[in-house]
Amino acid sequence: MANDIQKTKKASLSTQGYRGTRDFFPEDQRLKKYVYAKIHTVMHSFGYEEYNGPIVEHLELYAAKSSEEIVREQLYSFKDKGERTLAIRPEMTPTLARMIASKQRELTRPIRWYSIPTCMRFERPQRGRLREFDQLNVDLFGGIPLDEDVEIILTAIEVLKSVGATDEQFTVKVNHRGIINAFLDHNLSISKDIIPQLLRLLDKRDKISSEVFHTECKKLELDDKKIESLEVFLNSSIEEIIQILKENSLDAIELKKRIDILKELTNSQCVKFSPDIMRGFDYYTGMVFEVFDNHPDNNRALFGGGRYDNLVGAFGGDELPGIGYGMGDVAILNFMESHNLTPKLKKETDVCVLRFSENDRLDSLKISTILRNYQIKVEAPIVQSKFGKQIQNAEKSGAKAVVFRGNDELQNNLFAVKWLHSGEQETFAIEKSGYEQFIKKLKNI
Amino acid sequence: MANDIQKTKKASLSTQGYRGTRDFFPEDQRLKKYVYAKIHTVMHSFGYEEYNGPIVEHLELYAAKSSEEIVREQLYSFKDKGERTLAIRPEMTPTLARMIASKQRELTRPIRWYSIPTCMRFERPQRGRLREFDQLNVDLFGGIPLDEDVEIILTAIEVLKSVGATDEQFTVKVNHRGIINAFLDHNLSISKDIIPQLLRLLDKRDKISSEVFHTECKKLELDDKKIESLEVFLNSSIEEIIQILKENSLDAIELKKRIDILKELTNSQCVKFSPDIMRGFDYYTGMVFEVFDNHPDNNRALFGGGRYDNLVGAFGGDELPGIGYGMGDVAILNFMESHNLTPKLKKETDVCVLRFSENDRLDSLKISTILRNYQIKVEAPIVQSKFGKQIQNAEKSGAKAVVFRGNDELQNNLFAVKWLHSGEQETFAIEKSGYEQFIKKLKNI
Repeated sequence: MANDIQKTKKASLSTQGYRGTRDFFPEDQRLKKYVYAKIHTVMHSFGYEEYNGPIVEHLELYAAKSSEEIVREQLYSFKDKGERTLAIRPEMTPTLARMIASKQRELTRPIRWYSIPTCMRFERPQRGRLREFDQLNVDLFGGIPLDEDVEIILTAIEVLKSVGATDEQFTVKVNHRGIINAFLDHNLSISKDIIPQLLRLLDKRDKISSEVFHTECKKLELDDKKIESLEVFLNSSIEEIIQILKENSLDAIELKKRIDILKELTNSQCVKFSPDIMRGFDYYTGMVFEVFDNHPDNNRALFGGGRYDNLVGAFGGDELPGIGYGMGDVAILNFMESHNLTPKLKKETDVCVLRFSENDRLDSLKISTILRNYQIKVEAPIVQSKFGKQIQNAEKSGAKAVVFRGNDELQNNLFAVKWLHSGEQETFAIEKSGYEQFIKKLKNI
Repeated sequence: MANDIQKTKKASLSTQGYRGTRDFFPEDQRLKKYVYAKIHTVMHSFGYEEYNGPIVEHLELYAAKSSEEIVREQLYSFKDKGERTLAIRPEMTPTLARMIASKQRELTRPIRWYSIPTCMRFERPQRGRLREFDQLNVDLFGGIPLDEDVEIILTAIEVLKSVGATDEQFTVKVNHRGIINAFLDHNLSISKDIIPQLLRLLDKRDKISSEVFHTECKKLELDDKKIESLEVFLNSSIEEIIQILKENSLDAIELKKRIDILKELTNSQCVKFSPDIMRGFDYYTGMVFEVFDNHPDNNRALFGGGRYDNLVGAFGGDELPGIGYGMGDVAILNFMESHNLTPKLKKETDVCVLRFSENDRLDSLKISTILRNYQIKVEAPIVQSKFGKQIQNAEKSGAKAVVFRGNDELQNNLFAVKWLHSGEQETFAIEKSGYEQFIKKLKNI
């Protein structure tokens, strides 16, 4: 390794970053900040508060709280120079659990928290999936499950709407783990040992063929009749399922309440019951949901979440039931792209101050400073070039006006303004009233 | 290791994060966001654009671009599951260099970029220094050095002022590497081999005693006379130094121009010449600066930066001279604390909607939704509790008003508002005009 480094030091370094990570040039960063600003606004409108935590944690935290798949296959883990084993966070929930557990008694309920942490997972990079990503995490604890479940889905819908989506462009598929559990247990009499494997199989049903699904079901000791019942069940409405489950339909009745409220509040059909939504993680214990992009070119699960009962149990804390979801930035950026919702954002300079010689440096800097004191975004000249070239640069910066002082203006205590949208030019007195007149005009463009 | 994990899984997990990292609970995050919002505003007011890059890079990048101290002692490096050697970023400049090099021909000059990346270094945690920190990076390329140097220092001053600092609370100490180099070379005839070691010694002069400084100087073959000359030099004003260096005073004359302009623009003495400011990194080639906290309890360097000539050379790109600085979030937060500039920031909910039974759930949710559509921050009820308790919770949330519907209001198509600042109560029609009247009053509080 030491040799490799030595070699690279002399040869020319690669400008490529690590595979599955992204460089955010200003135009990319502007887009990300635009989306995040929308998210912050939505979350605050529901009374959620932002938190954050470390990008590395002790490996033990993830070993205890993350899924086996993450821990075994996707973790970036390593030892620090003091031999402590750490890992870069693959998800936020373990940190959230640790933080909540550390102050469980002090925190005012309900707890409405969100975060947009950067996470890393060792995966094969592909559309919608990178090794480094940001993930909006929204969690809610300490209330009545029905209210919490409705609210958390509303926030997810509003996040999508905030970037311009309409109800028709996405579907929120909801399910309750208890529904399928009741059916498998009471109606099909599947043994409890097999249920977790069967749930995992159902989770990937839309990615495999009907034949493979059958074969795999048979491996789990389901006969043809049970497979048929299962398939009928999976194609039933929530009302039909309540009938099928009879006295075991409590969870289905509860889920129907959520769907009905959400239909009424959103005045749309974007929330749908879908009995095959499982969610990968083992810790969900109640309602689960997944948001799908309805666009034919991007018809996939964008993100999802669900209810869990025992977030902080591993820390010896009291049970704290809650609900949450995680939405990757890659998913929402892809969604926006597929629906033509990506805005073209330009640099937002207001004014460029020009300069023509070494002698007017101080003068141009003073003007720049005064304008900034009025909260104007000003680019001061740091190159000397011809008037035309400086105008061109100002146009690239998105400036509305350029400000300069020629000989006339210098002699008469004025400054000149050229408005870039019209090409018109005018002068203002180089004193408080002149600056204020200029700024008033500038703000009206 | 596997055994350790197994054990932890069963025992109770620690709620402590990794040493030298921080948990940002909502109140901490609010403060951080407050400071970052100020920074964003200042940077945009100077026309700087935000960028960002990956939190890990190939180790080679840091091996080539970071200081030896960082690479050997402070790097969190590791192999991914595909045997590529990576490191968590200890600083942003190598990523900046890589990104600029990858698009060097396309980028419009001047390049005004900033970023606030999270970085990690394995260091002993202490006041002002953690293992995980955010660092504002501000860089400027493609202009005239004099203009660039002045502008970059102005941005640093404005960042401090934006959080409430006055000119008297900090000092920007500036120096030019060429000044001390010229003196050591021409006036003291120190051999070129020894100069780097001597610069490092000067860099830590304020942390060691005068005796140790003498002893170390002698080890570097300086006799008593030379040490005396050096000490006189280090206590000279920029004007005196221009005299001392005579025909080799070009860099000193250039630096004086910067100091004079900054004095005039800031109308203060906060920028001072200081010939012993070296900056740790070897790559600075021109003006360097360090910002000091003037508070007696926190009298230390907060952050600094300087001019470099060849940021992208290692990538085979053209020379691109520029100037930049890095300011840790810990430094600015400590600075604010020592000067009592830390604001008390509360949660910013506008309205809490109340609920008294299972029956008014949908009603309260509808009101919440309508108010949010008017950009009001609304907490919907997710618990059912007594009126008094709900009012208490609303007060904790910082709400200005609570909204509810009792029997009277239900019968008369009204909603009731209790203003929390006065305790007064009034009703509005549950229709567009009623909501708008309410919101108008709310915004005037």
